[in-house]
Amino acid sequence: MIVSCVMIAPLGWAIKDNIHSKEVSSFLVTIFSGLVLSFVILKKFPIKKQDYEKVNAKDGLAIVGLSWIVLSLFGAMPLFLTGSVPTYTDAFFETVSGFTTTGATVIQNIEALPKGILFWRSLTHWLGGMGIIVLCLALLPALGQNAYRLYKAESPGITVERIEPGNIKETAKILWGVYFFLSFLETILLMAGGMPLFDALCHTFGTMATGGFSTKNASIAAYGPYIQWVIIVFMFLAGANFMLHYQMMRGRFKTYFRNEEFRYYFGLIFIATILYAAALYNRGDVTAPIRTAAFQVVSITTTTGYVTANFDLWPNALRFGLVCLMFIGGCGGSTGGGMKIVRIFLSLKVGLRAIVQMVYPNAILPIKFNSTKCNDRLIMSVISYFVIFIFLFFFGAILMTITEKCDIVTAITASIATLSNIGPGLGKVGAVQNYAWISIPGKWILTFLMLAGRLELYSILVLLLPSTWRK
Amino acid sequence: MIVSCVMIAPLGWAIKDNIHSKEVSSFLVTIFSGLVLSFVILKKFPIKKQDYEKVNAKDGLAIVGLSWIVLSLFGAMPLFLTGSVPTYTDAFFETVSGFTTTGATVIQNIEALPKGILFWRSLTHWLGGMGIIVLCLALLPALGQNAYRLYKAESPGITVERIEPGNIKETAKILWGVYFFLSFLETILLMAGGMPLFDALCHTFGTMATGGFSTKNASIAAYGPYIQWVIIVFMFLAGANFMLHYQMMRGRFKTYFRNEEFRYYFGLIFIATILYAAALYNRGDVTAPIRTAAFQVVSITTTTGYVTANFDLWPNALRFGLVCLMFIGGCGGSTGGGMKIVRIFLSLKVGLRAIVQMVYPNAILPIKFNSTKCNDRLIMSVISYFVIFIFLFFFGAILMTITEKCDIVTAITASIATLSNIGPGLGKVGAVQNYAWISIPGKWILTFLMLAGRLELYSILVLLLPSTWRK
Repeated sequence: MIVSCVMIAPLGWAIKDNIHSKEVSSFLVTIFSGLVLSFVILKKFPIKKQDYEKVNAKDGLAIVGLSWIVLSLFGAMPLFLTGSVPTYTDAFFETVSGFTTTGATVIQNIEALPKGILFWRSLTHWLGGMGIIVLCLALLPALGQNAYRLYKAESPGITVERIEPGNIKETAKILWGVYFFLSFLETILLMAGGMPLFDALCHTFGTMATGGFSTKNASIAAYGPYIQWVIIVFMFLAGANFMLHYQMMRGRFKTYFRNEEFRYYFGLIFIATILYAAALYNRGDVTAPIRTAAFQVVSITTTTGYVTANFDLWPNALRFGLVCLMFIGGCGGSTGGGMKIVRIFLSLKVGLRAIVQMVYPNAILPIKFNSTKCNDRLIMSVISYFVIFIFLFFFGAILMTITEKCDIVTAITASIATLSNIGPGLGKVGAVQNYAWISIPGKWILTFLMLAGRLELYSILVLLLPSTWRK
Repeated sequence: MIVSCVMIAPLGWAIKDNIHSKEVSSFLVTIFSGLVLSFVILKKFPIKKQDYEKVNAKDGLAIVGLSWIVLSLFGAMPLFLTGSVPTYTDAFFETVSGFTTTGATVIQNIEALPKGILFWRSLTHWLGGMGIIVLCLALLPALGQNAYRLYKAESPGITVERIEPGNIKETAKILWGVYFFLSFLETILLMAGGMPLFDALCHTFGTMATGGFSTKNASIAAYGPYIQWVIIVFMFLAGANFMLHYQMMRGRFKTYFRNEEFRYYFGLIFIATILYAAALYNRGDVTAPIRTAAFQVVSITTTTGYVTANFDLWPNALRFGLVCLMFIGGCGGSTGGGMKIVRIFLSLKVGLRAIVQMVYPNAILPIKFNSTKCNDRLIMSVISYFVIFIFLFFFGAILMTITEKCDIVTAITASIATLSNIGPGLGKVGAVQNYAWISIPGKWILTFLMLAGRLELYSILVLLLPSTWRK
């Protein structure tokens, strides 16, 4: 119901563009069927207060996983009905790519799309970035204690600081509030650089959600240095923990560098930018090495996927360096994808501990993060995530070589670019390429990876367990 | 001292070949300097009984790590002195590749090498396969309780079954006994197929150690189906746990399939062989798809690296499938490299447990292997290994793209082919290529990966810790 209501915004652009178009009717049909379906379901299965109390961990994961699939099936309708894509699989791929903030597209000529569709594509980013379920938690009446389970299933990263289950509604409101505020700010700044309102909104959605859909075929390369710097800054903010932004807005400026994850995040991007800028400068064919380096490093690390240079033409070390950054991703509690900085560094700490443990077999070596000792359960969950992520990556890559018969670099980057919710990879899914050529089975596999990556694996994988479907 | 004595064997071949050659003098110089050095060290630092008791975990790892480096520096001498390779780095690379049973070579025309050198190359495989330190433990007088630490630092896999520290000498004797017996058997069978004694010995060393050095430029493609099948069988045996072979020789035939790791090992190779055979058959250009498939699957999974077909020309799915097998490797307690079957499947179980744990947050879910519950410490060490392995792989691959400026497929397969002690990769280090073209820094990086892979990371990584070098 909420998504049907939100769809009124792209309908507005469609009407403004051309009221007699196929597009307007497509949106109207979708909105109408969405509302009817919602009312029928609500009438048939009314939500009772006591139902909330019965939601267990499994239900929480399954509700979120299924919601995302249903929403994507529904959100794909306008794309399919307007004929913007040839098949429903393509429409579903594009919508999942939108909601999961991947930004991988099957559309070859973006600029030929009607405005309403362009707006809807970008809007799916914005909804999916901070989370549709989290939005519902913020907007709907309090869902009781178990709202926590839904929140946890959709929000990225690990919860080191405990959120009171009772305060979920409050947390959801704060997160969406900060998100909304930063989005507003970016739109203003983009418009100040001469971007029209429509493009400014679309690019804001793509940036703040770390999505990557653009309204231009050339992506951000179509714009000048000012716009590019604005987008670099907001991509960087979107890849950081939103709770830190909230603290900062309340006047606690030191909060960023007191946070260990943020320090690593900042350090990684800083060092990578310098190395890339130096390498690009040495090549001698780049007029603005620092801007190009900063843009691409931030875009890939935050898993946005916007492009200002065809990095597939760069030297192999720079290309492979970007692949490594793809695995890392943004911070926990951000809109970014990937394994997340916190998990990478905790995994590294676990690895280092194992070496030291070999030297001192009887020592008890706690692992700390943000100067707090992590308990064994947390450590185990982080490392398990690492292991599943790597297995899913190989699983996706080998299936790509089977279904697409494509080269290995294309296969591995298609797998990681979708699993980490980035968008562009290398080779045939490179910076100036798209996913249109991929076969129908291949598109379903990548769709699965995008959903698994965005919902941090469990919500989607839990749907594959037979026990989830037993009464 | 032991290695100097062992070097008399290649010296013998060198003398038989041509007594007045540079080769004979090279071996004599090496043996002489090795013996002199050993006596000087023994005289200067005599081994006292009470020293053994002081060996702690760190010392155990450091002794093994340093021994391997020193032995490789020493073992490289004949290659360098005869001028078989242009630089000492190349000689060191080739010797480490031998001892670690990698089988990556920097020599372009193997058949041009003198016999003594060829024999020494293959012999390093055989010594390194079951372990030089383990051989010392079997031959030298009992080293006391702490011999266990040396044994553990050199032997691959995880110790699920506890070996009594006092029985290390016995265990070392059993392992070398089984190893010797199977090697004898293979030599006889290869000679029965018409292979001369010299080549039969060299290929036995390469097979039983899962090494991969051949005496032919064409590797095993130079031989007929009978020889290939013999090598397939013995590669398979060498990739399995040698303790199981010992049990079998004592008449317990069911012991193989009672072992969970062996079942996975067998199943993986069986299924992969069928899939590869079917794919090769469909391509229509292979006369013996089952033999070719079985040979390449077994050779890569056991990390031997022998070649009967240029698999780099196969479809991408088959090429990438081999890369996946490279990560897995042989069984614990075998001479194979890689992450080891037991660690891969334990990691998978940990991943699956994390998903089930999400569904039932309060359940206590033990992880079993061979129907025994694994304790948390073991699980943590397995997963830490997984994490360090993946990080080292990325580390190696990115350095390859920097030092060699090579394509990404070459970089990632060079990294995994050395870290997993396989030898051939894809692209410029493919089945019919070699490592001669790699730069000096690149060779040192790969040498480090080979040693880290063979000694299961810790013995080499511990040498990088500053605390290891403090008094």
